[in-house]
Amino acid sequence: MLERVRVIGRGRVGTALAARLEARDLVVSDDDPELVMLCVPDAAIADVARQVPVGPWVAHVSGATPLASLAPHTQRFSVHPLQTFTRDRGDEQFDGAWAAVTGENVESIGRAIWLADLLGLRPFLLADEDRAAYHAGAAIASNYLVTLYRSAARLFESAGAPAEALVPLMRRTIDNGFQLTGPIARGDAATIEAHLDAIRRQAPDLEPMYRALAAATTK
Amino acid sequence: MLERVRVIGRGRVGTALAARLEARDLVVSDDDPELVMLCVPDAAIADVARQVPVGPWVAHVSGATPLASLAPHTQRFSVHPLQTFTRDRGDEQFDGAWAAVTGENVESIGRAIWLADLLGLRPFLLADEDRAAYHAGAAIASNYLVTLYRSAARLFESAGAPAEALVPLMRRTIDNGFQLTGPIARGDAATIEAHLDAIRRQAPDLEPMYRALAAATTK
Repeated sequence: MLERVRVIGRGRVGTALAARLEARDLVVSDDDPELVMLCVPDAAIADVARQVPVGPWVAHVSGATPLASLAPHTQRFSVHPLQTFTRDRGDEQFDGAWAAVTGENVESIGRAIWLADLLGLRPFLLADEDRAAYHAGAAIASNYLVTLYRSAARLFESAGAPAEALVPLMRRTIDNGFQLTGPIARGDAATIEAHLDAIRRQAPDLEPMYRALAAATTK
Repeated sequence: MLERVRVIGRGRVGTALAARLEARDLVVSDDDPELVMLCVPDAAIADVARQVPVGPWVAHVSGATPLASLAPHTQRFSVHPLQTFTRDRGDEQFDGAWAAVTGENVESIGRAIWLADLLGLRPFLLADEDRAAYHAGAAIASNYLVTLYRSAARLFESAGAPAEALVPLMRRTIDNGFQLTGPIARGDAATIEAHLDAIRRQAPDLEPMYRALAAATTK
């Protein structure tokens, strides 16, 4: 559909994306592109978009940024890979992940779905005005999962327990379809109080987070 | 080492534990046990322990409950499988998980390690006074992982995005060794503000949790 792609930005996503495009036999080049992919930080998208000559399709890979930030371009869309990327992996990072695709008309949505398919992503449509709620959900699921692990690891270390022992527990929690077990599921208020006592002793800065999560769990 | 085991309680853990003991050729029976395993809710352990005739070894599988709750028994220990259990799986649920083992002398710790090995668990020693901090960490890692998913799924639903798309993201977050990516890692305050605006519109009860997690992440 589009054969020559310029990829601006070689961060974690831009690097993996350029590699995947080449693996799919597209030409990644700064010259005469049919599509310009902006793989730059959210705050830089509008500035970079203004510097790109009008003509080719222009797209970004941001979760939270509206399409209007791609002005003055009107042939535009967005494909947000719903995945966390690392420089330790290659272009296989796209495999199995989903992608939020956004466009303002049938043609731009068609290009977005084509690109998601090409990258190996499973696309779903996201309305431009729903981006912030969607991306907040993604951040809660991924970024705050890191925070849970780090917080749990601190408590484990204070108890002399190996943090790596948390990993099979967390994996199985996902494998079991997020079934809730443990003291809150059992209505065991005494254990919750024992947790809070221990947190106040070992890691008092975690108490507000523990309480907010407990409140959200019991709702 | 011990061949006849009485298992009291057939909840999720007790059911899987009895099955695993039988699969390992031990005799699970209420008559003449050499070991009595209390697989009952934390709040019931002390009462049930008092009703068990003194003589055999007595152990519990609770994460947070101190060994003193097994009084009047003095031949006692604890093995806490660090795993979330479901009735949808069998005794293979122990495989790959770790276990916190606690005892008050070399002999009881030896029995605890023997039982953990027999069940297919990887044991580590946990001091009785460290149980609450350890178990708080386990609850944060597993129970609150459920809360993150449910909260993210609500925001996804409000945005018309499929909640199942969160699963590959969460799995990869673990696979990548909990590397932090996303707006907080990038210092992107504008995106955090956009998340908070969306949460206030779509799921305002989640704002305290989001803010507490953001604070814990930036620490």
